[in-house]
Amino acid sequence: MNSILDNFRIVLVRPIYSGNIGSVCRAMMNMGITDLALVAPKQKMDENEARTMACHATDILENRREHDTLAEAVADCGLVAGTSAREGLYRSHCKTAREWAPRLVEAAHTSRVAILFGAEDSGLTNEELSICTQVIRIPSSPKYLSINLAQAVMLCCYEMFLASGEAEPPEEWSPEASSAMREKMFELWREALLSIGFMKGDKADHMMMGVRRILSRGKLTEKDVRIMVGIARQTLWAGKQVEHIVKKDGRGEDEE
Amino acid sequence: MNSILDNFRIVLVRPIYSGNIGSVCRAMMNMGITDLALVAPKQKMDENEARTMACHATDILENRREHDTLAEAVADCGLVAGTSAREGLYRSHCKTAREWAPRLVEAAHTSRVAILFGAEDSGLTNEELSICTQVIRIPSSPKYLSINLAQAVMLCCYEMFLASGEAEPPEEWSPEASSAMREKMFELWREALLSIGFMKGDKADHMMMGVRRILSRGKLTEKDVRIMVGIARQTLWAGKQVEHIVKKDGRGEDEE
Repeated sequence: MNSILDNFRIVLVRPIYSGNIGSVCRAMMNMGITDLALVAPKQKMDENEARTMACHATDILENRREHDTLAEAVADCGLVAGTSAREGLYRSHCKTAREWAPRLVEAAHTSRVAILFGAEDSGLTNEELSICTQVIRIPSSPKYLSINLAQAVMLCCYEMFLASGEAEPPEEWSPEASSAMREKMFELWREALLSIGFMKGDKADHMMMGVRRILSRGKLTEKDVRIMVGIARQTLWAGKQVEHIVKKDGRGEDEE
Repeated sequence: MNSILDNFRIVLVRPIYSGNIGSVCRAMMNMGITDLALVAPKQKMDENEARTMACHATDILENRREHDTLAEAVADCGLVAGTSAREGLYRSHCKTAREWAPRLVEAAHTSRVAILFGAEDSGLTNEELSICTQVIRIPSSPKYLSINLAQAVMLCCYEMFLASGEAEPPEEWSPEASSAMREKMFELWREALLSIGFMKGDKADHMMMGVRRILSRGKLTEKDVRIMVGIARQTLWAGKQVEHIVKKDGRGEDEE
């Protein structure tokens, strides 16, 4: 086994729309999950429609298994997690996909884990939920609880993918600039702002407080500081040129 | 304003497929977000297709605004977050949707926050990303990075919805059973298992360790304990009946 995610199986119970099945394949592949089982699909699959929505995930579509009963589809699974949007008999002790994710990923180290999704129009029945070891609630707005089948699969696969630790690590950030680096930068900015006449000497401390506040509000990396130092240096250079011209002009005026 | 989520705007830049725009509406409404803007759609919208996919979220579709330029669509927004699957010039300092969510929700308390999604085939350009204050990376498998537009919108809206704290709180759980409750339960089980002859007195401690292990592995609520106590009581009753019959039969044999 290459990946813990290989031990997850998505089970669609009585799915209706071929387009949704295709979209499910794409969502699964986006999140590194590949094992798809269908239980008693309500109609013969429109292969064209399913393939169009599956995009580059047609392998998952082609390798799907179809079963007559749910029991058969999950017979080799350790944990069986059913998804549900509603409350009810077997639904009172459910947790969100995010809350269950660590438990499911842990189980996937030693056994197969099934996540069940009911038909588009009716969801899982109480009988189907009764064989589940976990019930997953997908949070949604009370104004519109019903999530499209492929979207529901995406959210669950996304949570498993993140919990598995196999999502690519975020890129390296440039390290936070040190206090010494920052102080050197502020010193240069002070000089530069004075040199271009943005502020007078007696207001400099006060104005620099503002500049400090603006530049300290978010993260400030070493790379950021190098850019800001470059700007200050160039500003200082420009300020000095102006000073030089003013002096020359001043002399010029004197000479006239 | 009723909800912090009212301050989020989903902006689709140069979207191509009407079906996707409809699916985006449904995903938004599922997660409590309602403000949709389109920038320079690539073709005239097929209203039927969009409405079919929007399902009960046609209000969002009808209230969408269309703009010629991105600048116009986000002019009134404080934060502008662009989504990106790739690396590159403006993409190196991105964080995941989950990492950015608290920052975006915080900003939404005081200003409008836009989340930008590029065209299905090409994503956002570097120029479009350059006006973003944040870049959001949606984690996906290196084997298939490209996520369907409506699915990408769903994942971002889902993260904002959860970070907003407006997702329904998880249902009340029955409290964990106390040690005293559990010990009373184990005492009854011991009696019951002895009475039906599942174990002999000298093996009872050892067998009960197994029973304890099984019943302590997960959470055990007060409700769970009441069920297990009920089973033990009834088993004990059955055991006593058997004992009684055996005695009677014994006596009967004696009498013969």
